[in-house]
Order: sequence, then structure tokens, then C-alpha cells
Amino acid sequence: MVNFFQHIEANIGPIEVLVFNVGGNVRFPVLETTAQKYFKVWEMCALAGFLAGREAARVMLPRGRGTILFTGATASLRGAAGFAAFAGGKAALRALAQSMAREFGPQGLHVAHVIIDGLIDTAFARTNFAQRVDELGPDGILNPDHIAQAYWWLHSQPRDAWTFELDLRPSIERW
Amino acid sequence: MVNFFQHIEANIGPIEVLVFNVGGNVRFPVLETTAQKYFKVWEMCALAGFLAGREAARVMLPRGRGTILFTGATASLRGAAGFAAFAGGKAALRALAQSMAREFGPQGLHVAHVIIDGLIDTAFARTNFAQRVDELGPDGILNPDHIAQAYWWLHSQPRDAWTFELDLRPSIERW
Amino acid sequence: MVNFFQHIEANIGPIEVLVFNVGGNVRFPVLETTAQKYFKVWEMCALAGFLAGREAARVMLPRGRGTILFTGATASLRGAAGFAAFAGGKAALRALAQSMAREFGPQGLHVAHVIIDGLIDTAFARTNFAQRVDELGPDGILNPDHIAQAYWWLHSQPRDAWTFELDLRPSIERW
Amino acid sequence: MVNFFQHIEANIGPIEVLVFNVGGNVRFPVLETTAQKYFKVWEMCALAGFLAGREAARVMLPRGRGTILFTGATASLRGAAGFAAFAGGKAALRALAQSMAREFGPQGLHVAHVIIDGLIDTAFARTNFAQRVDELGPDGILNPDHIAQAYWWLHSQPRDAWTFELDLRPSIERW
Repeated sequence: MVNFFQHIEANIGPIEVLVFNVGGNVRFPVLETTAQKYFKVWEMCALAGFLAGREAARVMLPRGRGTILFTGATASLRGAAGFAAFAGGKAALRALAQSMAREFGPQGLHVAHVIIDGLIDTAFARTNFAQRVDELGPDGILNPDHIAQAYWWLHSQPRDAWTFELDLRPSIERW
Repeated sequence: MVNFFQHIEANIGPIEVLVFNVGGNVRFPVLETTAQKYFKVWEMCALAGFLAGREAARVMLPRGRGTILFTGATASLRGAAGFAAFAGGKAALRALAQSMAREFGPQGLHVAHVIIDGLIDTAFARTNFAQRVDELGPDGILNPDHIAQAYWWLHSQPRDAWTFELDLRPSIERW
Repeated sequence: MVNFFQHIEANIGPIEVLVFNVGGNVRFPVLETTAQKYFKVWEMCALAGFLAGREAARVMLPRGRGTILFTGATASLRGAAGFAAFAGGKAALRALAQSMAREFGPQGLHVAHVIIDGLIDTAFARTNFAQRVDELGPDGILNPDHIAQAYWWLHSQPRDAWTFELDLRPSIERW
Repeated sequence: MVNFFQHIEANIGPIEVLVFNVGGNVRFPVLETTAQKYFKVWEMCALAGFLAGREAARVMLPRGRGTILFTGATASLRGAAGFAAFAGGKAALRALAQSMAREFGPQGLHVAHVIIDGLIDTAFARTNFAQRVDELGPDGILNPDHIAQAYWWLHSQPRDAWTFELDLRPSIERW
């Protein structure tokens, strides 16, 4: 990860925005969750977010600007039955985002956390949940372009009015 | 309030957006908070929000569209010492916004709650807290235009990706 | 309320504990919630709690001790569809409890908020929801004596280890 | 951990209560937090809690009873500046406790999470923060016996009125 960020800065250009967006939404009863699985989900959700955020901040801080956006889920806010590993990873990521926002905000970096609550209209969803995608209809499933617009809007916010957290959810979603 | 909304609809035009934005940030020890003050703050923050939101929804629901935006504060989330009345009013308003969002969202109305955490750069602030405004500088005090942009952005969100809640805070604000 | 507390102090004895426990769990769509209903629920849940808590604190503070216990519900934490009035009243009561705990704690008064999540085994429940009471069985419905034991335990806590908030819920309750 | 629980069950007796209580309250700026430190804090706070809770549940579930108590801190609820690692570990532990409570509660296991907000009166505190301990006085620092009484009380709760979460805090603590 360290080399990766240095490579980008050296060969591509200065990083203005980091979007950290990892899944890991697995469901297991606790007794069937191995230590390996519990670790893997945390590694993907939280450790990777920590390393990516830290290395992005390292190159952004000397410039006094930059945006770091973390993607959360409903599991960021509560541990449901069957989601001990996923909720643990997402809760740790949200805590990380809060700590980073409070530490880096006064130094000019905008750190935010987006809670996505609903199915996203991806090739994966259309292949694996085709019937549900049809039932939901276009207003019931998140369009990735609209998620991207929200991330862009966060990046564009002026320094006197930054958002730390917002949720995105289809109008018909129950919550 | 009922007549007011009917008057607008009849004589001005269909209401597309309601922004409900009331202050009431008073500070009193509990023993010095009269029933009258406690009531007044709730009446301004919550009852007025309920009536405005209800009447807006009444004209918006038959059209199946419209946006209702409520303004909150840090007190929406916690009751600090000295703010029993204000926190009570703001907490009630946030609960109202949640109930309305859950009831009206599937019917096409976008209800959202914005938590403003910081001083707003108004004539009132410049007159009454001139020194603090100077100390904070332009990045430390919320520009009303930037708040308005956030509200406009909420109103513009497509139906598959609505935000219920976001916070707005100067980059240097402690939280 | 003022006279009531003075009467107790003068004729019965010093008030050591206040338990404020009011229902008000009504369900209405927003458009069918009159201003009168919205006000009544707030008056019962929050204004009455404010007055009772304030007057209890007035007589307790000079003695530097006393316990004030407020009863909450799931609606204290979130506004569900159909519960705008109830959630508003309960959210305001919780904010009040927080403000009082922060103001009065250092002066020796223990203020706490108990979130009751489930049906309580009362004559009212047995009369009106007889079938549901049967289905739930003794582990699925809160025994009022056990709630009372929790309140007593809160009152008995030593000053170095006070609880502000706890929840009570049958083991089989979904949450 | 698996062997450890089997050893206790085989040679000492059936486990009725698990208390999982690990520190890990380290403070580092994000840029000085190595991957090793970030991992270690999570391993202590969350992975160890997961393994201990899972193995305790494995022996308790066939008996249909048992209590699993996790110890949290203020960092369980928010990520402060300088506490990315600690808040991540504690937030993950709280999510774990919620998932376990929701999964195991209906099967007869009582899972709870205790948020300790304040300094605890231990030999460590008296050695390392002697002056602060003196300044706080007996009402300002948590007595470990009183924490133990709260855990015992949680273990003693009847099945119709279980607490998932409570906080413990000295009366004079600011929060």
C-alpha cells in the first residue's frame, strides 16, 4: 500500500481524492465463523481502509488539501444477527473515519463516511439477484452514477461547510 | 399554518420544497427554566415543524413528489447541561423527520434532516459575536450560501439515492 | 406539580426517588395527527417529565442526593412510521434526562433513563392483548416486578459508578 | 482459546459467565500508527473477544443458559482524534456484542456490553496517575468492586428483562 501510493504520486499525479469502497458482506452464524473469516473481513474492511487512508493522508497533508471518502453500510451502525464479522469490520471503519476526520480536518483534509443502505445496481446484482432487481424497479435500487455524484459533491464542498456523514437509500427502502 | 399553505398553493404556486429552519438555542439551568420557556422552545422547534411538515405533505402527496428539509443542530443528538429545552425541541424535531421520512418516502416525498454544527455567518452573528467571527475566519464559520447549496443538492437527489441525514461543519470545528 | 412536590415534602417526607413513567404510545399517520394530539403526547411524555424532574431536583439539590428515573421506549431512539407524536415526546424526554444528568450529576443527583423494549405484563395487556400475552409466555413479556428491581438497582448504585442509560428487553424479543 | 475453554469445562466446571475485559487504550496520531499497532489493538479488543465469546457460546448453547459480558469504553461509541486503533477495536467489539445478543438471546444466552466511562481505581492508576487519583477523590474514580457488582447484577437478571447495554460513570465525570 505504501509503495502503491508513492507510485501514483511519482508517476501519475497528486492524489486529490481517495474513495475506499470494499464489500465483505458475508453472513454466518457465530459458531460457523472461523477466526480466519473474522480476520479476513476486518482486513478488507478496516485494515485496508486504515492503510489506504493513512497513506493518502501522508501525501495530502503537506499540500493542506485532499478528500478521503469511506463507504459504509447499515452494518456500520448496528450488529445484526449473522453479521458479527461484517458489522465488526464496518464499525471499525466508521470509527477510523471519525478519528481521521477529527485529526485531519483542522489540517485541511476532508474525511467523510457514506452509509449506503440498499442494493446497488451492478452487474453482480443483475446476475445474482435478477428477480429482486426487477421487483425493485429503477427507484428501488441505487444507481452507481448517483452514488458517484454524491461522492463528487462531498469532494466539492467548501471548507466552511463539510459533511462528515450522509446516508444514501432508495425512496422505497424500509429502514 | 393550514391557511398559510392553502394560500400559497392557491395564489403563488405548487410547493416543491419546504425548508423548516427555526432557532431557539437558549441556555438555562433546569431550575430557572419555566414551563412557559420549555413550552415555547418546543412550540418553535417541534410543533411548528410538525404543522409545517404535515401541511406541506398534504399538498405534496397527491402530486407524488416534493422535498421537506428540517434543520437540526448538535442538540438534536444529545442533551447538554443547560440545554434541556433546546435539546428537547431539537430531538423531537429529528424524531419527527425520521417518522415522516419513513412514512412519506415510499409515497415519493423526500424528507431530510440537516445537522448544522457551528456558527453561521449572519448579520446576527457579526453584530453579537463580532470578535469570535473574526477569530474563526472564513473557513471557521458556515457561509449561508453553502448551507443553501447543500439543501439544493438534497432537493436534487434522484429517487434511488436519497439522503435522510447529513451534517455540515467548518473544517476547523471541534466535535 | 409545584404544589404537589411541596405537599409531599411537607406532609409525607423527603423525596429520595422520582420515577417518571408515562405511556402515550399512540399510532397515527401524520396527516391524521391533529395539533391537539401531537401536543397532548408531548405534554404527557416530556412537559410532565420536565416539571416532575425540575421540582424533584429543587428539593433534592439542597440535600445533595436523590435519584430521578425516566422511562423510555424504543421510540426514544428512533422515529418509526406512524409514531411522529410518540417518538417526539420520548426523544424530548431522553434529551431532558441527558441534560439533567449532566447538570445535576456533579451536584449529587443520579438521573437515569431506562429504555423498555417489549410488552409489559399488566392487567391492561392481559385484557387487550390476551392472545399475544399467551403466545409470548413468561420469558417473552416484561414482569413489572423485574422492571422495579432494575429501578431499585439504579437507585442503589454508589456515586463512583452510576448508570445513565440501560435497556430492558425479553430474551426472545427481536431488536 | 478453543483448548482453553474445553480445558475449563472438562477440569473445572461448566462456564456460567464469561467476562471479557481487555484494555488497549493507546493514543497515536494516524501517521505514527503502524499496521502492526493497528492490528494488535484490534486483535486484543475484537478478535480475542470474538474467540472467547464464540467458544463460551459453544459450551453454553447446549445448556440453554449462560452470560457473556463485554467491557466497552467511550471509544466504543465514537472515534476521537488520536484513537483510530483503539476506537476501531472497541467499535468492532460492540458490534460483535450486538450480533451475539441478537443471535444468542432467543437461545437463552444473555450477552451484554458495559461502557465504562472514567478512570478505574486500580494499582496501575494509583502508580501511574497518582495525582489525578487524589484529585478525583473516591466519588470520581470507579471502584472495581462496584463494576463487579454491575456485572453480577447483569448476570442475575431474569429472562424477561435483560439489559444489553449500560454505562458506568462517576457522578462528577463530564460527558
